[in-house]
Parts: sequence; structure tokens; C-alpha cells
Amino acid sequence: MEERVYNFSPGPAMLPLAVLEEAQRDLLALPGVGISVLEISHRSKPFTEIIEAAESNLRKLMGISQNYKVLFLQGGAQLQFVMAPMNILRGTGKSADYILTGTWGKKAIKEAATQGKTSVAWDGEATNYNCVPAEADLKLDPHAAYVHITSNETIQGVQFPSEPQTGDVPLVCDSSSDLLSRPVPIEKYGIIYACAQKNAGPSGVTIVVIRDDLLERGADDLPTMLSYKKLAEAKSLVNTPPTFAIYMVKLITEWIMREFDGLEKMQEHNRKKAGLLYDAIEKSGGFYQVHAAPQCRSLMNVAFRLPEAELEGKFLDGAAERGLVSLEGHRSVGGCRASIYNAMPIEGVQKLAELMTEFSQANA
Amino acid sequence: MEERVYNFSPGPAMLPLAVLEEAQRDLLALPGVGISVLEISHRSKPFTEIIEAAESNLRKLMGISQNYKVLFLQGGAQLQFVMAPMNILRGTGKSADYILTGTWGKKAIKEAATQGKTSVAWDGEATNYNCVPAEADLKLDPHAAYVHITSNETIQGVQFPSEPQTGDVPLVCDSSSDLLSRPVPIEKYGIIYACAQKNAGPSGVTIVVIRDDLLERGADDLPTMLSYKKLAEAKSLVNTPPTFAIYMVKLITEWIMREFDGLEKMQEHNRKKAGLLYDAIEKSGGFYQVHAAPQCRSLMNVAFRLPEAELEGKFLDGAAERGLVSLEGHRSVGGCRASIYNAMPIEGVQKLAELMTEFSQANA
Repeated sequence: MEERVYNFSPGPAMLPLAVLEEAQRDLLALPGVGISVLEISHRSKPFTEIIEAAESNLRKLMGISQNYKVLFLQGGAQLQFVMAPMNILRGTGKSADYILTGTWGKKAIKEAATQGKTSVAWDGEATNYNCVPAEADLKLDPHAAYVHITSNETIQGVQFPSEPQTGDVPLVCDSSSDLLSRPVPIEKYGIIYACAQKNAGPSGVTIVVIRDDLLERGADDLPTMLSYKKLAEAKSLVNTPPTFAIYMVKLITEWIMREFDGLEKMQEHNRKKAGLLYDAIEKSGGFYQVHAAPQCRSLMNVAFRLPEAELEGKFLDGAAERGLVSLEGHRSVGGCRASIYNAMPIEGVQKLAELMTEFSQANA
Repeated sequence: MEERVYNFSPGPAMLPLAVLEEAQRDLLALPGVGISVLEISHRSKPFTEIIEAAESNLRKLMGISQNYKVLFLQGGAQLQFVMAPMNILRGTGKSADYILTGTWGKKAIKEAATQGKTSVAWDGEATNYNCVPAEADLKLDPHAAYVHITSNETIQGVQFPSEPQTGDVPLVCDSSSDLLSRPVPIEKYGIIYACAQKNAGPSGVTIVVIRDDLLERGADDLPTMLSYKKLAEAKSLVNTPPTFAIYMVKLITEWIMREFDGLEKMQEHNRKKAGLLYDAIEKSGGFYQVHAAPQCRSLMNVAFRLPEAELEGKFLDGAAERGLVSLEGHRSVGGCRASIYNAMPIEGVQKLAELMTEFSQANA
């Protein structure tokens, strides 16, 4: 086998080695089935068991009650940027409030504008998207169709520590990069959606959790594949779903339950990992600069800068030599970024923290 | 390893064992990369090489010239039922012609109707969808936005032996169940699309080949993820694509080139396999009845009936005992169906043909 490196990619991202090994072991034929998971019919008993287990695991981990549906869709979070407003804004005569804390929120509102009226309830542009809003600064419309947030902005490394209060207005959340990384009070959400390739699986499947009453808002003549209601009625099986990616979600949710016993301990583990990096940054005496303000630093994506671009290049080269890869910041903002999702082992983070300390001492 | 069976499922379907073995071997870490293909960034060099190879292989196999784009999308053929009319019908003031030769064509026109005006150019209902139309029977609108066909109706087992003449009107084709099974004169098509899970890969990726001029028809304000033009401009990477499924398309197209040297020999092989089954049916003296008329019998899905439902059950049980599985007909039409896509080895078809002959002799 090839030697594996520590992959700090923002997504697709590291998967637990135990999960990869299980998938590898059974790739030619599922035990007791004689057919690869890549080949089984989505209407077969073995696949029905897989998708039901994936849903049941998500319900257990996230505490999702029966008045929510769990959907496994395709197209990534960016298709949800359109589907959410197509289903619950269009035709309502209302406007949707967007809270913009970074790049993804700005993309989301742009797509929503193709479906209806939108309003910016808060925009972090003045401080270069380094924080989330204080409640007092939010300009929320009490009659809005919904309020949209991006719980963790992957590029800026800015994460909501808790949900904004939206009263009776449904909260719609792009949780692509922190779903399953911490417990959430699901009853505060109308819709929470996430592409899988950060904490929940490989790319190719999008998890959408939606409150039942919102299924009724969509027009009856929506195209089948874009209608939450029709997709929910078919239990995500209007047509062939991304079977392998859903299988991987099942294995990964099992891994979280087995290794961490739930999202409380998963969050503890993630806090510990992020703590190692933020500590190394704090102790560097200003050598490293975190983009995010202290109260909303992401536990998932630690975005930081070195004093000069040249040093950043040298740092990235040194990291690669130690098998620590994909630490470049997003091409739109530069700098460095360590994405440390659920599957990144603490050993990888320790190695990075050590390098950061050594490098800052040698180059300060 | 589990013993593998011969899986006659209509899709997801059998994959070549050599491809599964290659995927299994490299699942923990791609050679020279140290990261699983399930974990690599879609913007990384290794993945760029994978998606470019998948495209290049498809161009070679299908003879796709440079005035067509090859896209790797999500949502299956059913999302294309909407995207095609959304992009090339909506706003044109024209109508789209649909030729209905089975279940999937009927679904396609229903979704298209959410986007614009449609017209039925021919409907096989009178003969229970057992054939394709003669040219003389087609009522084509010379000013139509496009003509849509389903090249192979998976449920009815009815396949167009060649393309209908559509003159200057673009031909749009759902080729989900026969793409890569035979050569096609690509210049006759405006758009040809297919979900992968029959001949081209696992579920989770949809291949769309579209002529450049049609990219310009879509409105500028289409949502990004639903705009062929924007998806083409981003080379299918508006957001994270289904990386693993695209990798599998690369492996499978390589397998076709390696084992069959192209689609001519692939088609020969498929003709030979289908011939074994249709011969067994012909020689049964009426015990087996094929749904499709002789001139349009599918090389991919052999749909047939036995004299009574009870015998069908007995036949399916006997097949399962020999490791021949998923031979039930679609739930909407009943009977039996053998899906024998590219990856079904001739040995599996031989075993089935033998069983059919023995069974008809024993039960006639």
C-alpha cells in the first residue's frame, strides 16, 4: 500500500482510515450479497437496508425527530442554494433574509435571487468577513420566508458558535462544513443541508434535513427532481440515488458512533484539535495571524497568514516534506488553511502544530 | 472474498471485475499520491488528470469532435429531463417534439412540460410500446426547439436501431441505457445524455454531451447549477463533482478500450450476447414471448414473458439457484428482464440461455 499523508484539504477531505479499509474489503462483493455495493440495485433489499441505516444513524446522531425528513440528494450545497428558494420562497410573495458571513453565503444569495426576492440581513464585508453578527446588528424581517445562514464559512474560517434567533421565521442553514462535527438543536432549524465531502462522506451526496411543514410550500408543478416534497414522498428514490456515497455516509456515521459515541464527544475531539493550532498561533507572538475574530473561530477550518507570501511558500514546502498536505488557503484569499474535519486524526494536527511552532521560532 | 453472482439488474448494474479490482487495490491511496481517490481535492492535479482522462476517453470512444462539450453532472437522467428544456426550450417561443417509445420518454415529456410547450411527435401506446416509429409516421414540427428520443427503453426493451431524421432540428437523446454500448454518429445529436450506472460507471454521475451552439440558448439568469453554459465554462467544476464516480468512468472507458479496442467491437460483443437470449426465445416454440417487435429488440434489456406468472416465479427461483439474479421485470410491467450491459460477461448470458432452454423444455 502507498503511504498515506495527512490531508488538510477543505473538501473532499480525509476519511477515517477504518472506513476506507471497510469499504475496500467489501468492494468486490457485499457480505452475504455477492454483488458490489457499486452494482446493487437501489430498489434491492441490501440497499434499502443501507439507506435506512444511514438515515437512522443521522437521526440518532443529530437528534432528528419524526417531524423532519432526511433526504439524500445530489448536486452539492450549490444546488440547495437554488432548491431551497425554489421550494420555500418562490410564490410566497415574501422575501428571504440572508446573513452573509463569507464567500458561501454570498454565493447562496446570488442563486436565491433567481427564484425570488432576497434581502441582506447582515453583511460582514466591512470587517472582511472575519466574524458573525451580534443579535442586535441583525436586520431581520419578521415576515421573511426564511433566514439563511452559513454555519461555517470554509474559506474565511468563521463559524457561528450558536444559531441566531429567528423567532417564527424558519432558519435555513448551509452546514456543509460542520454538519456532524458538533451537536445542533435541530428544532431551531427549518432546513439544514450539507454536501457530504467534509465530515459525512465522499463527494456526490447532499444531506438535506427539512421540517415537514416546509414540504408543503413548494408549487405542485415544480420539476420532480427539484421538488423537496416529491423527493421526500419517494424517500429520496425518485430515481437512482448516488448509492456508493450513501453507503459511505452509513459507514462514517457508524464510525462516529463507534469511536465517539455521539456528537458531544466528536465536538470535544474537534475542540481539542483546533485548540492545538490556535494555541500554536497565539504563542507565535504575532507571527501567525488568524483571519477570524476570537469568538467565532472555526473548529473546522483554521485560516491563517504568515508575515510574508515568501514565508508561506517555505512553510507549505516544509509541511509537505513532513507529509502534511493541502494547506494552501483558498485561491480567492490566499494564506494558509488547515481543514481539520472529523476524520483528521489528532496526530496529524499535533504534527502540524509542532511544525508551526518550530517554523515561527526559526523565522520570526 | 464473497462469491460473486451474475447480476442482471437494469441499473445500477454489473461492473467489470477488472475495474472493481483496480478500484479496490487503490482505494486507500492512489499510486504516487498517498491519498484515496475518495479524499482528493477536485482542484488537485491528480483529480484534474482523472477528469481529463475520462473526458478524453469518451471523446475517443464516441468520436466526439471539439464543437461539443462533455459534462459530468449529477442528478441522473431525470434531472436532464428538466435541464434540457430549461436550457434549450424555455424562452424560445418554440415547442419541443417528443417521440414516446416507452416509460422513460413519457417521464421526460412530463418534466419538460414544466419548462415550456411540448408536442408528442409519435406515441407507441397503441401497440403497448413494443416498437419505434417508421419515419413516415413521425409528425415532426420543422420549427421545433428540438426532438427528444429515448434511444433504449430499459423497461420495454425497445431500442432505436438508428436515429430518426430530424433535419435542422437538434436531436436530444436520453441514452442512459445504451451509451457506450455501440458507436453513434455523434454529429446527428444536439445533446446526448446518460446516467452512468448501466454501461459507464456506478450511479452518481451523469454524462452530458452538448453541441456548442446549444449552450447559447439558455437564459443568462438560470441558476448556476442548472445552466449548461455555466457548467461548461467551469468544465463541470462549478462545485465539487462526484469525484469517485468520475474516476470509475475513467476506469471503465479504459477497460472498453483495452478489452474491445472501441465501440465497434463492444457492439459486436453485445450483439453476440443478446443473440444467445433471443435465439433461446425463438427456439422455445412460443414458450417465451419477447415484448419488443423484432426490428427494435434491445441489445441491452431483453424483456420477456413466460406462459404464466407462476412459471415466472419458478423460473426466477431456478435462476437464483444458479447465481443468476435480478431477472424480475420492472414492477410496472412484470414478466422477466435480462439486462446485459457491457460488463455482463458472455459466460453469464450463456448460463442464462442454457437455463431458459432447459426450463422451457421441462415446462412447455
